[in-house]
Amino acid sequence: MDVGVIGLGEMGSGMTDSLLRAGHRVTVWNRTPQKADAFVAKGAQKAQTPADAFRGDAVISMLADDQAVRDAILNSGVLERAGQGVVHLSASTLSVELAQELEQAHARAGVGFLSTPVMGRPNVAAAGQLNVLVAGDPALIEKVRPVLEAIGKAVWPLGEAPHKANVVKLAMNFSLAAAIGTMGEAFALARRWDVDAGKVAEIMTGTVFDAPVYKIYAPLIVEERFEPPGFRLKLGLKDVREALKAGEAKAVPMPLAGVLRDALLEAMAHGEAEKDLSALGAVPARRAGL
Amino acid sequence: MDVGVIGLGEMGSGMTDSLLRAGHRVTVWNRTPQKADAFVAKGAQKAQTPADAFRGDAVISMLADDQAVRDAILNSGVLERAGQGVVHLSASTLSVELAQELEQAHARAGVGFLSTPVMGRPNVAAAGQLNVLVAGDPALIEKVRPVLEAIGKAVWPLGEAPHKANVVKLAMNFSLAAAIGTMGEAFALARRWDVDAGKVAEIMTGTVFDAPVYKIYAPLIVEERFEPPGFRLKLGLKDVREALKAGEAKAVPMPLAGVLRDALLEAMAHGEAEKDLSALGAVPARRAGL
Amino acid sequence: MDVGVIGLGEMGSGMTDSLLRAGHRVTVWNRTPQKADAFVAKGAQKAQTPADAFRGDAVISMLADDQAVRDAILNSGVLERAGQGVVHLSASTLSVELAQELEQAHARAGVGFLSTPVMGRPNVAAAGQLNVLVAGDPALIEKVRPVLEAIGKAVWPLGEAPHKANVVKLAMNFSLAAAIGTMGEAFALARRWDVDAGKVAEIMTGTVFDAPVYKIYAPLIVEERFEPPGFRLKLGLKDVREALKAGEAKAVPMPLAGVLRDALLEAMAHGEAEKDLSALGAVPARRAGL
Amino acid sequence: MDVGVIGLGEMGSGMTDSLLRAGHRVTVWNRTPQKADAFVAKGAQKAQTPADAFRGDAVISMLADDQAVRDAILNSGVLERAGQGVVHLSASTLSVELAQELEQAHARAGVGFLSTPVMGRPNVAAAGQLNVLVAGDPALIEKVRPVLEAIGKAVWPLGEAPHKANVVKLAMNFSLAAAIGTMGEAFALARRWDVDAGKVAEIMTGTVFDAPVYKIYAPLIVEERFEPPGFRLKLGLKDVREALKAGEAKAVPMPLAGVLRDALLEAMAHGEAEKDLSALGAVPARRAGL
Repeated sequence: MDVGVIGLGEMGSGMTDSLLRAGHRVTVWNRTPQKADAFVAKGAQKAQTPADAFRGDAVISMLADDQAVRDAILNSGVLERAGQGVVHLSASTLSVELAQELEQAHARAGVGFLSTPVMGRPNVAAAGQLNVLVAGDPALIEKVRPVLEAIGKAVWPLGEAPHKANVVKLAMNFSLAAAIGTMGEAFALARRWDVDAGKVAEIMTGTVFDAPVYKIYAPLIVEERFEPPGFRLKLGLKDVREALKAGEAKAVPMPLAGVLRDALLEAMAHGEAEKDLSALGAVPARRAGL
Repeated sequence: MDVGVIGLGEMGSGMTDSLLRAGHRVTVWNRTPQKADAFVAKGAQKAQTPADAFRGDAVISMLADDQAVRDAILNSGVLERAGQGVVHLSASTLSVELAQELEQAHARAGVGFLSTPVMGRPNVAAAGQLNVLVAGDPALIEKVRPVLEAIGKAVWPLGEAPHKANVVKLAMNFSLAAAIGTMGEAFALARRWDVDAGKVAEIMTGTVFDAPVYKIYAPLIVEERFEPPGFRLKLGLKDVREALKAGEAKAVPMPLAGVLRDALLEAMAHGEAEKDLSALGAVPARRAGL
Repeated sequence: MDVGVIGLGEMGSGMTDSLLRAGHRVTVWNRTPQKADAFVAKGAQKAQTPADAFRGDAVISMLADDQAVRDAILNSGVLERAGQGVVHLSASTLSVELAQELEQAHARAGVGFLSTPVMGRPNVAAAGQLNVLVAGDPALIEKVRPVLEAIGKAVWPLGEAPHKANVVKLAMNFSLAAAIGTMGEAFALARRWDVDAGKVAEIMTGTVFDAPVYKIYAPLIVEERFEPPGFRLKLGLKDVREALKAGEAKAVPMPLAGVLRDALLEAMAHGEAEKDLSALGAVPARRAGL
Repeated sequence: MDVGVIGLGEMGSGMTDSLLRAGHRVTVWNRTPQKADAFVAKGAQKAQTPADAFRGDAVISMLADDQAVRDAILNSGVLERAGQGVVHLSASTLSVELAQELEQAHARAGVGFLSTPVMGRPNVAAAGQLNVLVAGDPALIEKVRPVLEAIGKAVWPLGEAPHKANVVKLAMNFSLAAAIGTMGEAFALARRWDVDAGKVAEIMTGTVFDAPVYKIYAPLIVEERFEPPGFRLKLGLKDVREALKAGEAKAVPMPLAGVLRDALLEAMAHGEAEKDLSALGAVPARRAGL
């Protein structure tokens, strides 16, 4: 299929590689255009504007935050100039509020829209093994299934209202932060009682916490290996904040999320914005004087 | 081996079954003695007092809380009358403070002592598939290895100071409560946005949260299936409280644990003390007016 | 002086009465225009549009929330048509973010701007006894001092950058919510131990908590007298949320504010949005099953 | 009257001075006996054992924590040897649990018992201006009223069950910690927005927070004047912990208290155990990187 990709950060780059490997014709756009060159060498076309990538069968946007999506999609006029029949897959982790604005803007412009937030770190994106949440018109989902299958190992449908996929994505990222925060407290407790945190991590991941979240993040926390970042702490804060806001919009108190927000802010105040989200797991140790 | 068992609650009963199945000679004691009869029918001996079970090669105590252990072990005179060479395996989930008192009391009485808290719900105990944390003198551990292997599928050594196993056990049970509390908030958020909580549970356990903790508890929370209890909520509260106290003893703030404590107290205040710990996952829904 | 008033809610009405009583010539505007009629009877002029009130020596805006200020001030074109020399006193409790936008918009339009959030409930406004925080150009403050003195018993200068007054106002309203939340927990604790909450309130306000905040809110909480509202709970939530956001913008964790936010959301979920903020003090009782 | 005093810490010393000034005959005991000598010079008698002070009309105990009371009162045999007709006024801030034990022990020994926790810092004790909470048999209260009036400016009766006074005392000290914690967050927010914390303190105490708690602690926090301690942080932690435990005993969630507990533990971990409780107000600043 003819597929555009808007946004060549670590995640978008990996997804582009997967699309190319699956034989799709890919047109890429990035705010800093040099990043596109590496993909031209691999066979992609380089778009001069977001609108140039917003055509063909499908276009995936994978941008860092709400503001980047507002700039590239909502305020760029791209929807009004979208190619006939193109389906937009919004893969960024966005606020529910913006997801709802996007729904309305696409409906007004008559452009097909799916919300397709993805789960997985950059290496998973590069392997085409993401878990893809998807919500929107089932007919559109069927139409772009080859694209979804190129980037993901599994597709999780969540109904016809696109923003519901964003709610679930925020719930997942909140849960991820909660798991990291939990390990942080458990490890700090162990360490202050002279128990090796690595041993606790081994027991957790060897028994009832035998899941990727714990297996990926436990060693990063134990070894305080927060660089290079796979998922930046400041983006993790953004997601916890948006989960809280989504809760607030529906009067859902989320006190665990509130505690995580505070710990993430504390990490920000200590210069860890650009480190890996696993640095959240070090906050309890600092508080305990370790 | 000749093995005593003190405490025939759901966990102790399962462990006794596993010991008998492995061919050990088992002597059981329970505060309400009728419970012992079922095991006599299976080939166990019935002890009239804790001291009658506190002999042979090893004795496992598996009691509900600190007070029960104080009554049956520390204040019963059992240590002074313990059989020659018996090794006491304390499998209950205890406060670190009591574990330290037990260490000292056994040392004074010249009785071998291992702390062996176990991980797993009653059905896992009955299957002999527990995860056994163990701390204490390595020579004693070797001596009672057949007992450990009869009750557990894996043994996790944690050093020579017995109370360290209790620290880790509390850290694990705190982490378990955190996972349940996290699902509770995530599911409440989803439901208020008209997303099926069962779908969120499926995505969690089908992706990066693919671990027993989530797979066991997610359906209980989603289906609000809090009875019969596998692990009583009031005991979960006890463990979170003891984790907090262990943290307090070493100046380790544990705000996530604090939030869980409050939610558990709220469940207690609403009559859920004897329900399954999974009822913790329903607290966020109640708060959100669901 | 010639003074406009934009917004005739309970607070704006009280301020208008104070201005008239002090002999100023007042022109009033309200979104629902009927509210203005009562003030015409008292000698005020009725403006047809916000712009008609945005002239003379000064104009006070006193609106419920950010959105109302965006509608009436930022997006209404009123700044471009403002009367020559008029100074705008923004008395609403706003987000710091919007205060900064207002600063910039007034500077662009060449209109004098002071941020003057006020402290006090409606009866205090009607008595001209508000505490007025003020930040902005000192020359402008001097110019409108008769207006400030008509509405307030004290004026608290906070520097030249208007948004700083909003930061302090949010800090004050967070502190108010904290005092109410604290009484709520203290009273729930006492009641469950069969101690009369009214007795605790009496001791607090008779000893070291002998301040208006406690003296005003303690009886409302003790007697569960949440209607009619003096300060609506939903507006209290807004202020705590904005305090959290102001903290987030500068990486200031505010865990007490987070706890209050959750309790306020819980009250919202239980239908108390339009009740008095004192209903926050009843949340701990409900959680405790009282 | 003949009055014993057990415990000559800062508070007990001030109370002794007040008793002497009021003309009572005072017998003092302290664990480190040298402290008693200063009071002998002022006319007091020096007791060799707690029992020597536990006679006459009344005896006040004013000790640092539960353990000190267990040592000096419950486990010293003093109740069995108490002078005929002496009334014990327990002025220490104790756990509710210990207060209940004391009730029972005094009843068994036939010794009059009142719980009389006091409010005020050492300088207030020295001035005889404490607020005295009192619960117990009204006839006993009448009997010792001259003693209560010597140490306090006001007496607050709380019913016949002595431990209720302890519940209220813990509720008050929790509220005190909450006020300090609130100022800490408000001041940190202001400082990061370049607003002088002293200015915020001035506005608080000059308006609706015009109460001793804020007026005493605000300047200590603003000026970071945490030494010498008037009320040690570690004792403030003890009180918040006991308030939480009193809540736990009755299933009362107290999330604000939980947040304060964590902040106090963090201060402990950073070496502030012996500083003034006002150091709690510096925790939010440290977290915000100030």
